[in-house]
Amino acid sequence: MKIGILGTGPVGEHIGSALIKRGHFVLMGGRKAGNERALAWKKKGGDNANEGSFEDAAIYGDMVFLCLNGEHTLEALSSVDRGHLDGKIVIDITNPLDFNQGMPPRILEKYAATSLGERIQEALPHAYVVKTLNTVNHELMVDARLVNKGHHTIFISGNDANAKNQVKHFLVDNFYWTPDDLIDLGGIQSARLTEAMVPLWVQVWQAVGTPMFNFHVVR
Amino acid sequence: MKIGILGTGPVGEHIGSALIKRGHFVLMGGRKAGNERALAWKKKGGDNANEGSFEDAAIYGDMVFLCLNGEHTLEALSSVDRGHLDGKIVIDITNPLDFNQGMPPRILEKYAATSLGERIQEALPHAYVVKTLNTVNHELMVDARLVNKGHHTIFISGNDANAKNQVKHFLVDNFYWTPDDLIDLGGIQSARLTEAMVPLWVQVWQAVGTPMFNFHVVR
Repeated sequence: MKIGILGTGPVGEHIGSALIKRGHFVLMGGRKAGNERALAWKKKGGDNANEGSFEDAAIYGDMVFLCLNGEHTLEALSSVDRGHLDGKIVIDITNPLDFNQGMPPRILEKYAATSLGERIQEALPHAYVVKTLNTVNHELMVDARLVNKGHHTIFISGNDANAKNQVKHFLVDNFYWTPDDLIDLGGIQSARLTEAMVPLWVQVWQAVGTPMFNFHVVR
Repeated sequence: MKIGILGTGPVGEHIGSALIKRGHFVLMGGRKAGNERALAWKKKGGDNANEGSFEDAAIYGDMVFLCLNGEHTLEALSSVDRGHLDGKIVIDITNPLDFNQGMPPRILEKYAATSLGERIQEALPHAYVVKTLNTVNHELMVDARLVNKGHHTIFISGNDANAKNQVKHFLVDNFYWTPDDLIDLGGIQSARLTEAMVPLWVQVWQAVGTPMFNFHVVR
């Protein structure tokens, strides 16, 4: 599949590299084409790795990952003609975190009443925004087997049942998530629930001494 | 041990009944002595069960549990001479939830910038407030074995290391929590992290169809 990634940070790099290993074609987009990190990543990634602007990634991908800093996500999306994302699945991994008030972070005040996931869906009314993977470390996102033999939970929020179903299969097939551990929380408004738990995630990281952990919903 | 419980709802009842079974002496306090639910609970509980006002519970307990509706907790505490709680461990199980904006609930706006746990500590400056058990169903609070053979996580927040240590032992000895699954998040300001995850808990309840689940931090 052709996949566009918006964002050139560690999350984008890990997602992009994993998808190339699984045989997909990936274009990593930055604020402008020719981003240094995107070029370095492309060089490592071989023939299936491409780079360009946010807009190039939106055009290229049959599916698009948002791997952006939460604070700048809506601004980044505003630089893209949203028509390029119409009808596409947009996987939103962003978190609207405010690190300016000390650790652990807080939710950015402008997103406290709704969520970044909802605001992204509003900005892209004809895309299928699915929020997921935002509650784990980027290494774990792309290989669930790295913790507890793959038994731990990932949450999924989005308005379109078919899009969520495709994303579930994608996570299982490419990132080794266990089907029984995918929990559908409902519409995109439920993105606020997982965004709100990320500050706890950061503090648990401090408590357990490693980011390679996750929450497993057990009965 | 003599234990005071502030609150006559299902949480207070479950905590109180479990503690009587473990051989403790319990006084359940309501807004006024003679609360109907407290009287019914006392009748079932036998010789070690007592009832009275919030103030009576604060006086009676060597350790005190706050099992109050989050919205009314500070008001309830203001009816108690706080000197009665000086030097005592106060276990805070409350959550500042707002159910008036539909489900899942939100955090009450007046506590969004801090947390109810912190505000309780401010109201009781000479008590040792320890926030815990607020992220699970009341049946599970008092018997961790009911889910995943007792392997799942409970978080602890509080300013005093010795008080937290006593609470940890209390949870293990009385409510069958597994020592390795108790995660100390730091000072009472970390109460906001667990309070913030309760709306997610409510939605996961909907998704999995039972409140008898918990989050297990796995590596």
